[in-house]
Amino acid sequence: MRIDFLTVVPETFESPLNCSILKRAREKGLVEYHIHNLRDFTTNRHRKVDDYPFGGEAGMVMQIEPVDRAIEFLKNERDYDEIIFTSPDGELLTQPIANSLSMLENVIILCGHYKGVDHRIREHLVTREISIGDYVLTGGELPALVIADAMVRLIPGAIGDEQSALSDSFQDNLLSAPVYTRPAQYKDWKVPDILLSGHEANIAKWRMEQSVERTRALRPNLLNNDAK
Amino acid sequence: MRIDFLTVVPETFESPLNCSILKRAREKGLVEYHIHNLRDFTTNRHRKVDDYPFGGEAGMVMQIEPVDRAIEFLKNERDYDEIIFTSPDGELLTQPIANSLSMLENVIILCGHYKGVDHRIREHLVTREISIGDYVLTGGELPALVIADAMVRLIPGAIGDEQSALSDSFQDNLLSAPVYTRPAQYKDWKVPDILLSGHEANIAKWRMEQSVERTRALRPNLLNNDAK
Repeated sequence: MRIDFLTVVPETFESPLNCSILKRAREKGLVEYHIHNLRDFTTNRHRKVDDYPFGGEAGMVMQIEPVDRAIEFLKNERDYDEIIFTSPDGELLTQPIANSLSMLENVIILCGHYKGVDHRIREHLVTREISIGDYVLTGGELPALVIADAMVRLIPGAIGDEQSALSDSFQDNLLSAPVYTRPAQYKDWKVPDILLSGHEANIAKWRMEQSVERTRALRPNLLNNDAK
Repeated sequence: MRIDFLTVVPETFESPLNCSILKRAREKGLVEYHIHNLRDFTTNRHRKVDDYPFGGEAGMVMQIEPVDRAIEFLKNERDYDEIIFTSPDGELLTQPIANSLSMLENVIILCGHYKGVDHRIREHLVTREISIGDYVLTGGELPALVIADAMVRLIPGAIGDEQSALSDSFQDNLLSAPVYTRPAQYKDWKVPDILLSGHEANIAKWRMEQSVERTRALRPNLLNNDAK
């Protein structure tokens, strides 16, 4: 997989892409990250990528020209499966969407910034708008990293123990059961006896019950979402 | 505001906290970030913070002891309003929650990692569990940054133009209207005439209609959420 990030704040990406699974997946050759500064695609002397909104309103708007030029530049090099724009009003990211994104070859993620991007970018240049949740952030850089992390960790080989991804929350439309580790007692707080019993079948049954119970209590909507 | 991040991957935070609004808010003295490596709170020679899950399962589990010691250490220094744990099965982050978090003084954000954290941490040590969305990530570091960004940009003075935050998506339970900037025509793509008309009242009316229309089409649930 190859991910091209288009951004006006390229520095944001430095440390997160060099940690943990995102780093390891790159080192294993499973993914390439390319960060492009949109200012490199401007034609004006000041490398300005934003301007005042038409119709008068607070905040600045990202211009279409540098975005179009950056996307053109990349598309001339290779085909892209998706040009994703991170937007609070896009399609909400879910685990099934992360699963399908993890199978793509070449992806551009355009990070919005300022008050927003010129709407013609959204109408004509991007193929998909994804939101990581119903809240507003400074820019699309953290959402782009979240989307990248959700996709990349699902590429076979990215996390050491494949079993671990399969038993993640959401993969069955169920939240995970509680987990515990040593010590069995810490202060007054004990691990449930069942987990220390060594009885595999009972433990599996307990885990499934806990998953269903937690899902019903915390995310009842997941239980009605079989079609997704 | 003071935010203490507890993590096993402290490097993740370096660049995002040093960019854009998160950096500017700190430089203006509106917020302090403190990153704590949970390994510094271990008592074992290898600074190990994880161990195998009881009951046999794939993946490793974050141990309670270093987390408890880190939280105790911080609580001895000052009072905390919330000890937030970033978890996929926590309460879903929304703009109203970001608004209320932006008014806190001292906050700890505990970042999960590995397969999960010892459940006793969640039962006894944290005061609030927040999820940024229904998907699984490598760790709680990116979610902690997302929560921090959502809170910090709402602190008065953090973003230059206060007007800009007030007209953000979600602040009225409405998505924003489309925005456009120069040039008025790019390739064949034109800005809507109304925005070039200079007629303020008509523009305001058009924006409200667009907001309602986009919300109805993309996030109908927001319109029924007046109580939130």
